[in-house]
Amino acid sequence: MANTQPHHDGSSLYVANQRPAVNEHCKLRMRVPTVWGSASRVWVRSLQDAEPRYDEAVCLGDQGDGWVWWEAAIQVVNPVALYRFVVEVPGVNGSDDQYFPFNNAGLFARDTSDYHDFRITTAVPAPEWSRNAVMYQVFPDRLARSQAANTRATPDWALACTWQTPVEGAGPDVARQFYGGDLAGVSAKVDYLAGLGVDIIYLTPFFPGRSNHRYDASTFEHVDSLLGGDQALIDLVAAAHARGMKVMGDLTANHTGDAHEWFQRAQADPQSPEADYYFFNEDHTDYESWWGVKSLPKLNWASPGLRDAFVTGAHSVVAKWLSPPFSLDGWRIDVGNMTGRLGAQDLNGEVAALIQKRVLEINPEALLLGEETSDAGVDVDGFGWQGAMTYSNFTRPMWQWLADTDARADFFGTPFSGPNKVAAQTVLATHCDLSSAFSWPVRNATMNALNTHDTARAASVMIPGGPLVAAALSMLLPGIPVVFSGDEFGLEGDRGESSRTPMPWDEPERIVTDLRADYVALTGLRHSSAALSRGAMRWLMADGDVLAFVRESPQESLLVIATRAHVQGLGLADLGLDEAEQAAMAATAPVYHSGGYLVYSDVNLNGPGVYVWRLPGVQVPAE
Amino acid sequence: MANTQPHHDGSSLYVANQRPAVNEHCKLRMRVPTVWGSASRVWVRSLQDAEPRYDEAVCLGDQGDGWVWWEAAIQVVNPVALYRFVVEVPGVNGSDDQYFPFNNAGLFARDTSDYHDFRITTAVPAPEWSRNAVMYQVFPDRLARSQAANTRATPDWALACTWQTPVEGAGPDVARQFYGGDLAGVSAKVDYLAGLGVDIIYLTPFFPGRSNHRYDASTFEHVDSLLGGDQALIDLVAAAHARGMKVMGDLTANHTGDAHEWFQRAQADPQSPEADYYFFNEDHTDYESWWGVKSLPKLNWASPGLRDAFVTGAHSVVAKWLSPPFSLDGWRIDVGNMTGRLGAQDLNGEVAALIQKRVLEINPEALLLGEETSDAGVDVDGFGWQGAMTYSNFTRPMWQWLADTDARADFFGTPFSGPNKVAAQTVLATHCDLSSAFSWPVRNATMNALNTHDTARAASVMIPGGPLVAAALSMLLPGIPVVFSGDEFGLEGDRGESSRTPMPWDEPERIVTDLRADYVALTGLRHSSAALSRGAMRWLMADGDVLAFVRESPQESLLVIATRAHVQGLGLADLGLDEAEQAAMAATAPVYHSGGYLVYSDVNLNGPGVYVWRLPGVQVPAE
Repeated sequence: MANTQPHHDGSSLYVANQRPAVNEHCKLRMRVPTVWGSASRVWVRSLQDAEPRYDEAVCLGDQGDGWVWWEAAIQVVNPVALYRFVVEVPGVNGSDDQYFPFNNAGLFARDTSDYHDFRITTAVPAPEWSRNAVMYQVFPDRLARSQAANTRATPDWALACTWQTPVEGAGPDVARQFYGGDLAGVSAKVDYLAGLGVDIIYLTPFFPGRSNHRYDASTFEHVDSLLGGDQALIDLVAAAHARGMKVMGDLTANHTGDAHEWFQRAQADPQSPEADYYFFNEDHTDYESWWGVKSLPKLNWASPGLRDAFVTGAHSVVAKWLSPPFSLDGWRIDVGNMTGRLGAQDLNGEVAALIQKRVLEINPEALLLGEETSDAGVDVDGFGWQGAMTYSNFTRPMWQWLADTDARADFFGTPFSGPNKVAAQTVLATHCDLSSAFSWPVRNATMNALNTHDTARAASVMIPGGPLVAAALSMLLPGIPVVFSGDEFGLEGDRGESSRTPMPWDEPERIVTDLRADYVALTGLRHSSAALSRGAMRWLMADGDVLAFVRESPQESLLVIATRAHVQGLGLADLGLDEAEQAAMAATAPVYHSGGYLVYSDVNLNGPGVYVWRLPGVQVPAE
Repeated sequence: MANTQPHHDGSSLYVANQRPAVNEHCKLRMRVPTVWGSASRVWVRSLQDAEPRYDEAVCLGDQGDGWVWWEAAIQVVNPVALYRFVVEVPGVNGSDDQYFPFNNAGLFARDTSDYHDFRITTAVPAPEWSRNAVMYQVFPDRLARSQAANTRATPDWALACTWQTPVEGAGPDVARQFYGGDLAGVSAKVDYLAGLGVDIIYLTPFFPGRSNHRYDASTFEHVDSLLGGDQALIDLVAAAHARGMKVMGDLTANHTGDAHEWFQRAQADPQSPEADYYFFNEDHTDYESWWGVKSLPKLNWASPGLRDAFVTGAHSVVAKWLSPPFSLDGWRIDVGNMTGRLGAQDLNGEVAALIQKRVLEINPEALLLGEETSDAGVDVDGFGWQGAMTYSNFTRPMWQWLADTDARADFFGTPFSGPNKVAAQTVLATHCDLSSAFSWPVRNATMNALNTHDTARAASVMIPGGPLVAAALSMLLPGIPVVFSGDEFGLEGDRGESSRTPMPWDEPERIVTDLRADYVALTGLRHSSAALSRGAMRWLMADGDVLAFVRESPQESLLVIATRAHVQGLGLADLGLDEAEQAAMAATAPVYHSGGYLVYSDVNLNGPGVYVWRLPGVQVPAE
């Protein structure tokens, strides 16, 4: 498929060496559609020790499909190489040649800052298995409750709830409501999850705390007995591994709970080894904490003792749970953006890299993700978190495109009444702005979540049918698709706390919209498509109600049209399909469609919906 | 003056505390023109340890001039605080409220990356004297030749030239052409420079080398005897200081010459103290150098010995020349962007901060600038270089707006045939993109150069009349205006080397365009206007041939209209002037105009030209 803009991305279609070392050369390709124009020369401008260098590309000619390919080699001089293309278009009738910088945010007719340059990272990328994996997020108190849970006493901090008790979204009991879900409950659902197409079970914290969310760990040494203790985790991981699934944990590197054994010793005794794990004031009467919440004392990463206990030591927290008998497959680091940062102290990159190094020592196939609630572009260069749990490049643009204008959804305490409703072109601009600083490996390892335990539910934010559109896009765009448990039942919630709904296993009346069949179809597509797991990503259209793009590989291409409303008479030529491609599309049924009605040639689509066609792969010039 | 957009910048009109310390609170103001709309609420979103926090602004009301002011306080938690405003506009007829993030690149109707957020730095800002100072760049071999120069022998590396010998722009003799200009020659021109309105004499290197540019120092201990030796510098600084002028030197922190005494010792003896000042290979047969040029061996800032000798020691290079009897007023650091960077080693920020600390120890009133040939936004956060010598945010946009489409001007070896010719809106987009990552103090200490010894001359790149337009804008925009010696005579040169023309003191026939009177007028304006030295900066129009903006202070405002062509019928209302302001403008003559013809009301302006009116200051709400 042609469209109107030159194209390059970090996929192997365009970047031959997907894992260069510092000082290696790397061949880069890009292609220019003849409908855009005819380039006379092309260069790659790369930064080498922060100074721009220009390497001229050679023209590889076209493949008879309306695209002219160019190739250049750059030397990757630094751990992260920034580069852009510069396309020369010859002047006509004596006018000047024109130069078009082309970076990860698009094509410009002017000089641009380096920020949106393409990036190649020499960091260890997320493991292969993550490339077509679907993640399922579990809030352990709310997924499922085993029989054993009935035998456990309610702890003093908790307010016992039955599985039917309504979840409170605000007020003093928010963190106290205790439903008693446990890890054996999760284990009992592993078959269900396998059937849904889940590859990664991501558990929010399983350490004991004094809250239902357990982000206030009192120790990192044991699994909360309320969840079944260590053995329950061992059993869950074994059950998951037996089905080829991975299990990830959730670790607070920014803080512990104030009931944590480290903090207890630190607070009791300024001479204790743990005293410098935290930030106490001079007379030891006060301490730094997360966002001023005193129950969450902040960890001080300048402390060698903390580094040893948490990361580098033989029995460190990071290491212990990735090792047998627990054998977790990775960590999601809570508050990754604030970790190691306090005032003038900024050890964030150093700490993240330290953790990555240790994680990969224990298990080179482990995955390390970091929470970055806001713009993750600068922090996540691949040397610490291999990908981000962020909301900026996917979640929020989806919320905004598909916004129910009556919704008043909370997002991390922002004071706004709800998401702006925006058109597809704005969605694309936002998505590009907030993801263009990612290298390709980071972008692919970054979570595409509709919502999480920290946000409102998509079903409470979006127009009817919107959540499925967003779910499909989470599977079809680069990134790790995330299902927050309950998404498959269309569950609702207007803020993070009220989204942590107990699952309606035995209460079909609590299923709002049953999306399980769609999830099965979508995860199946994700697993079976080389274009989705490894392919390139090229936008075709972003116009009001329509987003269209193509995932491309030499083996196959997937054409995706998403719409938030009924669309009539969308011309296939507008998408850049030539006649042969239009014929190929018309000759084949979509491999997936969520909408009910479609006619192509001039495309009429029910909306909201997502339509996916499998088409022939890209014709790539020979080496 | 109203215009169509909310406004804020880092000036004291909007930021009460111009030099906050970490953890201090800082009051921020912004204003919304009623012609844009009516904001219902306004917040400041600031990053605190990388997490967004929202502080709500209070409305201060309007001053009867069409602007509604808002004020909020943020806590400056980190050394550099990033922030943006978010403006809420209430929904009409049941539609949703809309939120407009407003950052240093403008107003957006969508989420944006943090990159363009406003920045407050807690770094030591450039000294007060730099705020209305005009810089004059001197290439010592080419400014003026004293009688004593006749007595000096031509060195072995040099090719003796008379003052009339044409400068060669390329070829083997480029660095060998030796005109014999010296510091006594510069001293003899101090009165001339004072008359022109110069405040800072910036000398490219005065250390001995084996080239006319002397960026290949053979020692940092002495002034080149070909320039008159140490005493000539002492005399020049004394002469300048006597007239209230400053003198800055130029230091290569990235490399030395291969004839440098350090390198000679290092190369001769791997056991020498200097051996680790450089990057030798294992068998000591090869070494790293600037851009592969072996005569410029690269310095290794991981070396404690180098740090001592260059920066921190009692007799260090940085310290010696700022101390009596030399008493330089600051340094421009050559290749500031590459300094301390090599492959995986990135000590750039650390080295820059180390140099700043030492500079300010010696002289708290000294100025430290760093060369950053490309985008300087990320590097120059104020803690190292206090401002940049860069081309991205001023020089290149000016070249592009005012481009002579026949010009083929070289820019740091870029492979392009010349600058794209672009319209004013593109100039503004480029300027904003490439300066929005600067904090206000850094922006004001960053050099606004038309050209330097490293680039083509503006007169060879621009349309006739263009260089004066650019010169005027260099004086009128935030930043340190730079005159590269010869600009005032309209000298030409199609690349850096051919721009280093001996000055036509005694050869009036070599004066291309005599701009001295204009420079006197412009420097006079710069010195006498509070709005220029300390005032805010607000764009009014960027449209094709016209750029218009206003510099504002409570005392006065300067309205600036720049045009690259004749303009007829530009409506004053289009600039956002209300009737009273139009009347005020019509009642006063411009305080400066370079064009010859003007009528206002509907404005007709000769172009290329720059027109400046002094108008009443801004009405500011009381504290």
